[in-house]
Amino acid sequence: MAEPIDFYFDFSSPYSYLLSEKIDDLAARFGRKVRWHPILLGIVFKTTGSAPLTLQFPAKAEYSVLDFGRSARFMGLPYRHPDKFPIATQNAARAYYWLHGRDCALARRFAHAIFRALFVNNQDVSAPDTVLDIAAELGIERGELEAGLQSAEMKDRLKQEVDAALALGVFGAPYVLIDGQPFFGADRLPQIEQWLATGGF
Amino acid sequence: MAEPIDFYFDFSSPYSYLLSEKIDDLAARFGRKVRWHPILLGIVFKTTGSAPLTLQFPAKAEYSVLDFGRSARFMGLPYRHPDKFPIATQNAARAYYWLHGRDCALARRFAHAIFRALFVNNQDVSAPDTVLDIAAELGIERGELEAGLQSAEMKDRLKQEVDAALALGVFGAPYVLIDGQPFFGADRLPQIEQWLATGGF
Repeated sequence: MAEPIDFYFDFSSPYSYLLSEKIDDLAARFGRKVRWHPILLGIVFKTTGSAPLTLQFPAKAEYSVLDFGRSARFMGLPYRHPDKFPIATQNAARAYYWLHGRDCALARRFAHAIFRALFVNNQDVSAPDTVLDIAAELGIERGELEAGLQSAEMKDRLKQEVDAALALGVFGAPYVLIDGQPFFGADRLPQIEQWLATGGF
Repeated sequence: MAEPIDFYFDFSSPYSYLLSEKIDDLAARFGRKVRWHPILLGIVFKTTGSAPLTLQFPAKAEYSVLDFGRSARFMGLPYRHPDKFPIATQNAARAYYWLHGRDCALARRFAHAIFRALFVNNQDVSAPDTVLDIAAELGIERGELEAGLQSAEMKDRLKQEVDAALALGVFGAPYVLIDGQPFFGADRLPQIEQWLATGGF
């Protein structure tokens, strides 16, 4: 069986949300699994001296918000730009890794729920309580997850994931690695498909 | 007849080259003409506080060069990353506007020749002599064009085009405006096609 694909993202990245809705099904069509890696773009941008699209100069910020919604419609996905944006996502990311250690499939459902809460339902998923609420709807015991979020183990885990991504050259999100070949951006989906279909071009 | 599409680009922009090979034929399928506007990204970046992709941090620079060639192959176009890159393009841009005032179709052929000289044949098209050589191959009288390049009129014209682009919100290249709707990047080609086909989505 072919190696899994690696998918690096931040829960606060609109284009990551768009790709998250497509990447598993696409990979499955070519017999591939996807490893999801939530990371923190804030740390990545600090390291590279970059900034979120909407906090750059006004013309780019304005275009970006237009393009988030238009790209979503083009891909057949719902999108509502969040009132609070961008947001901190360390609680959602730590919750993901904590869940992943217990139940991979549940962690994946949780990740989709976080993305949709933020980019469809305009919920502020930076708040620990909102993360716990969303997890509770999936049947996850609130107290256990809350302890997980605050544990040194999950803080270290997230830090290691961000460091590992930076070491691999990840400079933004979404960022996909297929057999060592990097693809940056949801708009590279057609190239990802071609690459999976042909093994390179 | 529908309004022309506006295509803003810098001759030193790889993604502009890629789009330049596709935009006229695509627009023609929907009964549209394209107005080409060479501009100077150096001035745009200075205004917005941005920088060329390959002069940003190393991970992004390295990825960008990989993506230029891969995107070209994906689009079925030749690409050889120039040894000297990025380059100044005011001579090529002024020559374009000078020619356009005399023969629109010839100006278009000249623009394609400049892009291909730089991105296929690794020629340094920043040099006035190279611009004049490329024009000469298209039957353009060298002395006349040389005088045009140095004229205050063409210097003013290019400055006005850059100022007009900035006023419209152009912050990078390629940048396409269709009935007021902006599209940034060669990777928005599928969305441009959909927009032309449906009048919006």
